Amino acid sequence: MQHKLKRYEKLADEIAALIRSGVLAPGARVPSVRLACNTYAVSPATVFKAYYLLEDRGLIQARERSGYYVREHAQSSLAEPRMSQHQTTAQEVGVSELVFSVLGSLKDPHTVPFGSAFPSADLFPLGRLAKSMGQGLRRLSPRQVIADQTDGNAELKRQIALRYTLGGVMLPMEELVITTGALEALNLCLQAVTVPGDLVAIEAPAFYASLQVLERLKLKAVEIPVHPRDGIDLEHLQRCLEQLPIKACWFMSSFHNPLGASLAPARKQRLSDLLHQHQIPLIEDDVYAELYYGNQPPRPLKSYDSEGLFMHCGSFSKSLAPGYRVGWVAGGRFANKLMQLKLMTTISPSVPAQVAIADYLQHGGYDRHLRKLRHSLEAQQQAMLAGAARYFPAATRVTRPSGGYFLWFEFPEQVDALRLFNEALAQGISLAPGPIFSATRGFGHCIRLNHGHPWGAESEQAMQQLGRLLAAF
Amino acid sequence: MQHKLKRYEKLADEIAALIRSGVLAPGARVPSVRLACNTYAVSPATVFKAYYLLEDRGLIQARERSGYYVREHAQSSLAEPRMSQHQTTAQEVGVSELVFSVLGSLKDPHTVPFGSAFPSADLFPLGRLAKSMGQGLRRLSPRQVIADQTDGNAELKRQIALRYTLGGVMLPMEELVITTGALEALNLCLQAVTVPGDLVAIEAPAFYASLQVLERLKLKAVEIPVHPRDGIDLEHLQRCLEQLPIKACWFMSSFHNPLGASLAPARKQRLSDLLHQHQIPLIEDDVYAELYYGNQPPRPLKSYDSEGLFMHCGSFSKSLAPGYRVGWVAGGRFANKLMQLKLMTTISPSVPAQVAIADYLQHGGYDRHLRKLRHSLEAQQQAMLAGAARYFPAATRVTRPSGGYFLWFEFPEQVDALRLFNEALAQGISLAPGPIFSATRGFGHCIRLNHGHPWGAESEQAMQQLGRLLAAF
Repeated sequence: MQHKLKRYEKLADEIAALIRSGVLAPGARVPSVRLACNTYAVSPATVFKAYYLLEDRGLIQARERSGYYVREHAQSSLAEPRMSQHQTTAQEVGVSELVFSVLGSLKDPHTVPFGSAFPSADLFPLGRLAKSMGQGLRRLSPRQVIADQTDGNAELKRQIALRYTLGGVMLPMEELVITTGALEALNLCLQAVTVPGDLVAIEAPAFYASLQVLERLKLKAVEIPVHPRDGIDLEHLQRCLEQLPIKACWFMSSFHNPLGASLAPARKQRLSDLLHQHQIPLIEDDVYAELYYGNQPPRPLKSYDSEGLFMHCGSFSKSLAPGYRVGWVAGGRFANKLMQLKLMTTISPSVPAQVAIADYLQHGGYDRHLRKLRHSLEAQQQAMLAGAARYFPAATRVTRPSGGYFLWFEFPEQVDALRLFNEALAQGISLAPGPIFSATRGFGHCIRLNHGHPWGAESEQAMQQLGRLLAAF
Repeated sequence: MQHKLKRYEKLADEIAALIRSGVLAPGARVPSVRLACNTYAVSPATVFKAYYLLEDRGLIQARERSGYYVREHAQSSLAEPRMSQHQTTAQEVGVSELVFSVLGSLKDPHTVPFGSAFPSADLFPLGRLAKSMGQGLRRLSPRQVIADQTDGNAELKRQIALRYTLGGVMLPMEELVITTGALEALNLCLQAVTVPGDLVAIEAPAFYASLQVLERLKLKAVEIPVHPRDGIDLEHLQRCLEQLPIKACWFMSSFHNPLGASLAPARKQRLSDLLHQHQIPLIEDDVYAELYYGNQPPRPLKSYDSEGLFMHCGSFSKSLAPGYRVGWVAGGRFANKLMQLKLMTTISPSVPAQVAIADYLQHGGYDRHLRKLRHSLEAQQQAMLAGAARYFPAATRVTRPSGGYFLWFEFPEQVDALRLFNEALAQGISLAPGPIFSATRGFGHCIRLNHGHPWGAESEQAMQQLGRLLAAF
């Protein structure tokens, strides 16, 4: 899922890594062009292009007649959140009403959308997609508009399989079931491997829709704590798998929502081994896979599975085509069952939407768009981290994910996230309070903020207002 | 949902009614132009236009120098099927695998599609829809592509509400939930008013997808017999409602699938009274509502409900835009619950598909298209009835619906529909065997044939081949 990196892009990534790891601290001078030429054995033009790119990504800034410096907010001065403690018990889920009241607050177009689940649609090539829609519809035969409902559009499936192949996963097209967004895929996966009353292991905190789906399907949640940087607590998971009759796991191993955590490759291998050992089907929610900031796409857990035990769910909603509602699942040994469930539920996602995306993937310049999108999201993350460092209390803790468009903030215990949510909303700012990410309404002093919208004076002001509200607690 | 009829259209409908009721028998001469002018007090031009229309609808034909005659097959010589007998018991449903094996048989493009659930996509204005897609997408703002996911496209909802109004149903737009086809709407409705293990009254025979959905949601079916012309047996239903803890009814009161039966207005009123008396929510599957042959659109059961107890499910898949996957439910008092369930399942149908249909409904000429579509389906029904009268055994019974694109055939007891299905498939002809329409695999000597495809020599030949297979039983 990667284009061949140019030399200047590699150099930019190397320097970005130095900044992220703290070797180049905020305010530090970046190596001069002459020094960089010598150190990395590249031409001055390459160094300049690399520095322009880093400037674009919000990591460095030029000072007149003085060279480039690491931006003050490139590494936030705020600490990292701690991992939550959880009991090994199964929970009935009852969070839906709270989630809907929060989601309802997002409808006002004048609200600063820090609480939104979507990035700004301005970041997507909607005009080019419309052109692909026109071209796709011209080629679509009347017969195909019926047939594609059952099987999914063949060209779309070929393009998706191709991207898996580039990412190192060999996938027979028959494993692919095209769905109405990833959320339908996730719903179908759960239904394929559970019956009401079953136990399902999920992360804590977890994407609130997964909690709603469990509630709707009358499944019980076993919450596994997630470290804000390293991802799911594998020891805790192992104990749960040994002690409880867990029927499935629903995990995000890359750019976890809301924490942004990703498992390192060795930990992905261990997680995969653990699930194979217990023969527990995995439902892998990987909708942010394309939104990595560095040069290395994250490897899906699916790539560690040779037995068809893992169902890998993806979507174009967050990377290319919001509102088109086209997702998929690579269903492994459950593919046929998933296809049948889909035919009983919605039959098919929109065929025109499928042909539009298939045409775009072939001719639209997906990788070029993705590079631009990733740079925007990374720069906006830097801006939000800087705002938090400036305006939020010093005791605030914050994640620093290497992909996606969410930051997770942990405040001192006296901050009530639900009260903060209401107070911020009254000032025209939405946010996602921690309790909607927990079956037990935990994380009462945490919030998730969305930096998927172009940063501007309004965003800066909203951070300042939130800071004032936080100070009052 | 009706345009103002022209004089010649009224005249054509009056004569069509005489033919359908048998007053004008097959082979009989239609009144001469001079006689018709006198009888109906219209001009010769009006009579000619009416007769051309009736010719187009497949009901009459010209004989050179001799005038117009009722076509031989305009009224089939075959008798009407009888109503099935059913016990008042609740059934676990287990028909999915059989249905999937039948549906799988439809994939070969060289098979005569008598078993298909869809009409031919050639009958739909796909080119004009593509133009509406282009226009809709040009007007769609980035903000709206996100917002329309939650609320549904406002213009589409306005157009749907407008068609309800023309049909005599006053509907607040807030009641409308836009879904991924009617099948998602029906699924959501069932989940809104039942929990696993509950009893749901359905028709016998019933649309096989309703049986699959019940099976998937672990609901039990109470099968209510349906008369091939008059529709559901109200006395039987009344007894069931009195004796069993039924939680919901899922009925098609117009152009029932597979029988084609429609309830007369007085019987609709009685059914509505019965459900209100017992306070049982109705899930009304009305996807064929626009496919009526005469000049009178059928009135939905929803129009008899002033308490918000009935959920009315519709779709554009059978009347305008196959493969776009846009349906809706007018959810009555359950609308909010349905909206929440939708947000937990698929979030939204494709926004581009919604704006395309909204634009078409405003500017595309929907009513003109529908008149043409209805005439095609009616003419094709006549052709299939004629073929059956010519080639099928004399003891064959067949329905004669006044809308839709299905005929239901009842054969002598020794005919095994599943064997017939396999033998026909070997000869390149698909059909829908009776047992897939029953929770108890009844209707073993019945089949449903689809006449939604333009009639040609191949169709005629397929009827002849089916006739030969039937004769061998």
